Amino acid sequence: MVKPLILITNDDGANAQGIAVLTRLMCQIGDVIVMAPDGPRSAQSNALTVTHPIRFTKIEERPGLLRCSCTGTPTDCVKLALNEVVDRRPDIIVSGINHGSNSAINVIYSGTMGAVLEGCENGIASIGFSVCSHSANIDFSFFEPIILNITRLVLKNGLTHGTCLNVNAPVGPIAGIRVSRQCDGRWVKEFEKRTDPQKRDYFWLTGYFENHEPNEEDTDEWAILNNFVSVVPTKIDLTAYQEIDRIKSWNF
Amino acid sequence: MVKPLILITNDDGANAQGIAVLTRLMCQIGDVIVMAPDGPRSAQSNALTVTHPIRFTKIEERPGLLRCSCTGTPTDCVKLALNEVVDRRPDIIVSGINHGSNSAINVIYSGTMGAVLEGCENGIASIGFSVCSHSANIDFSFFEPIILNITRLVLKNGLTHGTCLNVNAPVGPIAGIRVSRQCDGRWVKEFEKRTDPQKRDYFWLTGYFENHEPNEEDTDEWAILNNFVSVVPTKIDLTAYQEIDRIKSWNF
Repeated sequence: MVKPLILITNDDGANAQGIAVLTRLMCQIGDVIVMAPDGPRSAQSNALTVTHPIRFTKIEERPGLLRCSCTGTPTDCVKLALNEVVDRRPDIIVSGINHGSNSAINVIYSGTMGAVLEGCENGIASIGFSVCSHSANIDFSFFEPIILNITRLVLKNGLTHGTCLNVNAPVGPIAGIRVSRQCDGRWVKEFEKRTDPQKRDYFWLTGYFENHEPNEEDTDEWAILNNFVSVVPTKIDLTAYQEIDRIKSWNF
Repeated sequence: MVKPLILITNDDGANAQGIAVLTRLMCQIGDVIVMAPDGPRSAQSNALTVTHPIRFTKIEERPGLLRCSCTGTPTDCVKLALNEVVDRRPDIIVSGINHGSNSAINVIYSGTMGAVLEGCENGIASIGFSVCSHSANIDFSFFEPIILNITRLVLKNGLTHGTCLNVNAPVGPIAGIRVSRQCDGRWVKEFEKRTDPQKRDYFWLTGYFENHEPNEEDTDEWAILNNFVSVVPTKIDLTAYQEIDRIKSWNF
């Protein structure tokens, strides 16, 4: 029997702990190809490299596993692997394990989820796994059986065309899994202003997330704050269908 | 009467022709602040600058108009303007005029539309304007009355929370305006492989868009190919609501 082919990427880079754990787990399920950025590419969203060419380098090759690093973004990694590296179509794409939350609006900034949307766009079942901690040395073991479970369920059941999964875990222990929706909210007080020795201002991105629906139990933020792993079915069609008729009624 | 405050950005950079046209048009409607990248940032999606700080420079200031350039991405530009530059909340954010199409799946890669999603996320009515030509010197005059019309309609009618507009124009003449949905399709044959003098491979992003719904008259691609300006109501909530019950039924 042919094993499933699993493509792995992330946005923390090929040397991050999260992708090492994810690679070890996926090797229990199938043949694995890793194509990950050659360094951190956090918050790269679906950015593409268009002003210069990209390259990739094989960093490990053994039966059932090929690991490569790439000079591009997470989305570049998926495109490059699908177009230039795989010899058959991957059965699934998994991205992560991200060091940091990709819940709520973070989904649109995340390089991890950018790669997942790219896999989805290519018609391949795709999942992003993130843990709500930026620690480089977090213990992912509490999350491992859940990752294996969700990946196997997706391989068995498939995902509907145009949809993928955004999976976010609190730092254990875990109360269970909640299928959720993207919470409404936004980042505020986003910059820390500093002045350089030449008296010129510069700005570091920072801020905090303001939850606009703290009491809504069907959101991903609620799930995570209540110790559940949130699973948000996520789509690449951004059309606001419910607005079409209203805007058609405008007298253009 | 206080004029509307209009924030403008783009992804082609502060010196692109498209943003000069958009700035001239918006000065007919309100007070204008431009915060645009200091060079091309195409295909930057919703990327954020997190590994180093950003800066901005005032490049023009006269009554009713402040123009700044920023070292960051289009999304950084919106965040920085809203947090550090405006003295009141903008009534509207417009992004573009982009040199190149942002229809169909391009919406998720586009820096122009990244800025629009960012404006929307901040609760401000936001519109992206793009022309389906990469020419640096395109004549935008056919599009100008349509841009003024749509901007005035949005200022008058508002946009529903969490939604924004993705407006794409073919190269004139224009048959009319069609409120559309995001067309399904994907990019294929995405890289051109070359070999450098040291015999190492490198890859340029290229490819072409494969339309999966060429006969669906309600898509943005159909509108553009039939000489209409497409207006796609676009949302920042990526939840695939129709999938929630199906995935809840999985035995996690």
